[in-house]
Amino acid sequence: MADLLTKRADDYAQWYNDLVLKADLAEHSDVRGCMVIKPHGYAIWEKMQRALDDMFKATGHVNAYFPLFIPKSYLAKEASHVEGFAKECAVVTHYRLKSDPVHGVIVDPDAKLEEELIVRPTSETIIWNTYRGWIKSYRDLPLLINQWANVVRWEMRTRLFLRTTEFLWQEGHTAHATKEEAVAETERMLEVYARFAEEWLAIPVIKGIKTASERFAGAEETYCIEALMQDGKALQAGTSHFLGQNFAKAFDVLFTSKENKQEHVWATSWGVSTRLMGALILTHSDDNGLVLPPKLAPVQVAIVPISRNPEQLEAIRAYAAPMMESLRAKGITVKFDDDDTKKPGWKFAEYEFKGYPVRIAIGPRDMENGTVEVARRDTQEKQVMQMTDLADKVEHLLGHIQDNLYQKALAMREAGTRAVDTYDEFKVEIEKGGFLLAHWDGTPETEARVKEETKATIRCIPLDSDGAPGTCMVSGKASARRVIFARAY
Amino acid sequence: MADLLTKRADDYAQWYNDLVLKADLAEHSDVRGCMVIKPHGYAIWEKMQRALDDMFKATGHVNAYFPLFIPKSYLAKEASHVEGFAKECAVVTHYRLKSDPVHGVIVDPDAKLEEELIVRPTSETIIWNTYRGWIKSYRDLPLLINQWANVVRWEMRTRLFLRTTEFLWQEGHTAHATKEEAVAETERMLEVYARFAEEWLAIPVIKGIKTASERFAGAEETYCIEALMQDGKALQAGTSHFLGQNFAKAFDVLFTSKENKQEHVWATSWGVSTRLMGALILTHSDDNGLVLPPKLAPVQVAIVPISRNPEQLEAIRAYAAPMMESLRAKGITVKFDDDDTKKPGWKFAEYEFKGYPVRIAIGPRDMENGTVEVARRDTQEKQVMQMTDLADKVEHLLGHIQDNLYQKALAMREAGTRAVDTYDEFKVEIEKGGFLLAHWDGTPETEARVKEETKATIRCIPLDSDGAPGTCMVSGKASARRVIFARAY
Repeated sequence: MADLLTKRADDYAQWYNDLVLKADLAEHSDVRGCMVIKPHGYAIWEKMQRALDDMFKATGHVNAYFPLFIPKSYLAKEASHVEGFAKECAVVTHYRLKSDPVHGVIVDPDAKLEEELIVRPTSETIIWNTYRGWIKSYRDLPLLINQWANVVRWEMRTRLFLRTTEFLWQEGHTAHATKEEAVAETERMLEVYARFAEEWLAIPVIKGIKTASERFAGAEETYCIEALMQDGKALQAGTSHFLGQNFAKAFDVLFTSKENKQEHVWATSWGVSTRLMGALILTHSDDNGLVLPPKLAPVQVAIVPISRNPEQLEAIRAYAAPMMESLRAKGITVKFDDDDTKKPGWKFAEYEFKGYPVRIAIGPRDMENGTVEVARRDTQEKQVMQMTDLADKVEHLLGHIQDNLYQKALAMREAGTRAVDTYDEFKVEIEKGGFLLAHWDGTPETEARVKEETKATIRCIPLDSDGAPGTCMVSGKASARRVIFARAY
Repeated sequence: MADLLTKRADDYAQWYNDLVLKADLAEHSDVRGCMVIKPHGYAIWEKMQRALDDMFKATGHVNAYFPLFIPKSYLAKEASHVEGFAKECAVVTHYRLKSDPVHGVIVDPDAKLEEELIVRPTSETIIWNTYRGWIKSYRDLPLLINQWANVVRWEMRTRLFLRTTEFLWQEGHTAHATKEEAVAETERMLEVYARFAEEWLAIPVIKGIKTASERFAGAEETYCIEALMQDGKALQAGTSHFLGQNFAKAFDVLFTSKENKQEHVWATSWGVSTRLMGALILTHSDDNGLVLPPKLAPVQVAIVPISRNPEQLEAIRAYAAPMMESLRAKGITVKFDDDDTKKPGWKFAEYEFKGYPVRIAIGPRDMENGTVEVARRDTQEKQVMQMTDLADKVEHLLGHIQDNLYQKALAMREAGTRAVDTYDEFKVEIEKGGFLLAHWDGTPETEARVKEETKATIRCIPLDSDGAPGTCMVSGKASARRVIFARAY
């Protein structure tokens, strides 16, 4: 199967597209910009959801569900919010079809909505309109709510998982009595995202703050996690917004404080989406297909019996059974592939291509020797292992693979991260990709000029840096600290 | 809190509405017919989802995700399908807003879609259009896919959970090589729904087949599970459809059979929705508030310490700790309510109203005696229990409550189910509610007349019945078996 795949070195973008399609992760639908997430892709997304949901609940959040539709006037209530989303809104104008003798089924002109409805591009407005009824006193705060949902942003140029008109995501929307609490929540959720990226996706991320021009429409401050892909381009993997009192003011959400004063509520919102599927693929996969971190692989261990006849197959099944039971008892997912319509070589190729972390082959010789052959997907190493304590060994191996993927991605990012001091040097280096640490004078003009001239954007002002001052590589003006530039997805 | 609740005997519909709102399950949004599912309600829905999803996977199904939007022409491809859904479609006609100096934010007339998009009312059309690319040979079959999604059906009269414009559901869409396999799948999933209703919702259901007039638009046969609510009205709790080759023909989905022939694929679809939340409430709850089956309760055991000072609270916490640990080890969810801003009496009222199955109160006297006070929500009985093996006793009690709710609902349904032989008798009995078993001549005319004259519909032709023949109560013509009539939600 891997020979159907464009090589990364030949055309990285094509490699990505090939892989998403051929590994059965997703495909384009006939609906412009909307994707179909296929079972193998969706199973990975389900694992991400489960892990994130557990982390949200462990930090005190609960789930709820708000309407898909937003009245146009609500979207318009927060000025910068509508400004940011107006150009990409799917608009519902009618609520009925009817038969027409000439044109077949048509939109019924008599069923026009008085006020158009927007398919949610994000839910701040409908949620804050609802929160007005829920929040009366400081006793109702904090309100820590998350929603798993689909959202729609009309995109002109789409790429599977990375930029689609409809995508799946979670959006947290919290309400707080004080600015300090809301900022702390914004930072806490950024931390949750960073931990999820590193511990589950095996992707190292840089935590930082967006510049004003890259901020979420309606936010006072946008925090983000930024990752570096194999091709040297950056990918924003999650954002957490401190919304100040903007939405509370737009929707009149006031509460009675402990001091018995009426005050506007403070807000945050934070989200990650099916875009993370793109990040996962772009970080770890290779010319042989998908590579998945064991923690997110739908099936972690595939067992391929190599038998000449049904009796041998049954003997192998019995031989593997105790080991499979031990693996399952450890919470490891195992598949015993007894499909006799496919040859072992075909199965090996498929498991490799689809990113199964560990593959175990068992033949008659193995049964004689008390062994199995264990192959790991990440390094493609094979080794013969004794059956004794095999489940323990496999569990250890899965942990090792998870760690190896993270270390490899970290080494890649570190190799791709350099400091540059002059704009000339910057222009040369940006062509090679990677994160460039450079001084910036803090003005939107300089930021826009760099973007215009080099297609690089400021990915973030990193939170964890020494913050040594310097002079802007472009203007020569004072700079408080280096920021991270890169070309981005 | 229960005194805020209308009594069932006074106004059952109002009682339901009060309860949904006051128990914080859901509320109406400002968007016509769309609800907000609040955290307490959503937590119950999440438990339903988890249980159903496990059952779908155990029967070989996988999840995927298809687009929210359906091109109008696709919906129109299957004639009876579009006929069934045309009158309740939300239609997207534009993809951009813009600022207007006079009217503020308006729909950009230059951003009109060439072809309108329908917000999915159900996904057969977009899915079968996709399956055309996935199915080539009998080796690709069966295709057993489920989707968790939101759907929109424009409703004129809505009721929280029972009938809303947007609702959440799952929709299974399977493809098979033969009619027999597709029918077997349809029946298998009906069985799954019936088992879920009985084992999780604690609601006894009757499995049956819908008459032609009540069939899903585009189905050859619709199977259903029907339940009886406390007020004597029926509620359809789930449907499973045998779609024949209708959608395969409409979307040209052909496969090469083992005999190397080109044949149209056979289809099923099946779904349950947030309507089940309505069924749950209408079946078990009472004038004191919500009653939840323990298996679906977000928190199964609430522990209320009764303390005069922080030292006592800490002593009670320590006293309860080992028991809580034992309960959690059994997978039972427990909350220790140490909120000192609320009095125990207030907490008791809230846990009762919100349907926590078991409440444990612990005061200083209990610590002296080695006891706790255990209250169960379903019967409102309280008893003092020794701490010895308390976790085992509580586990047993939860199982007992689950079973009791089912038995109570079953007794209610049995009391409400009677055979009637004449139409005069029918007209009297239908006023009392319940399931009426009556002979019907099998014609849509008789069915329509009964509906017109009594507001009763044929809920189903039951699968499990002796099927003794007789004569139609209305026309006197021959009837193969009794069918179930009722007024329904």
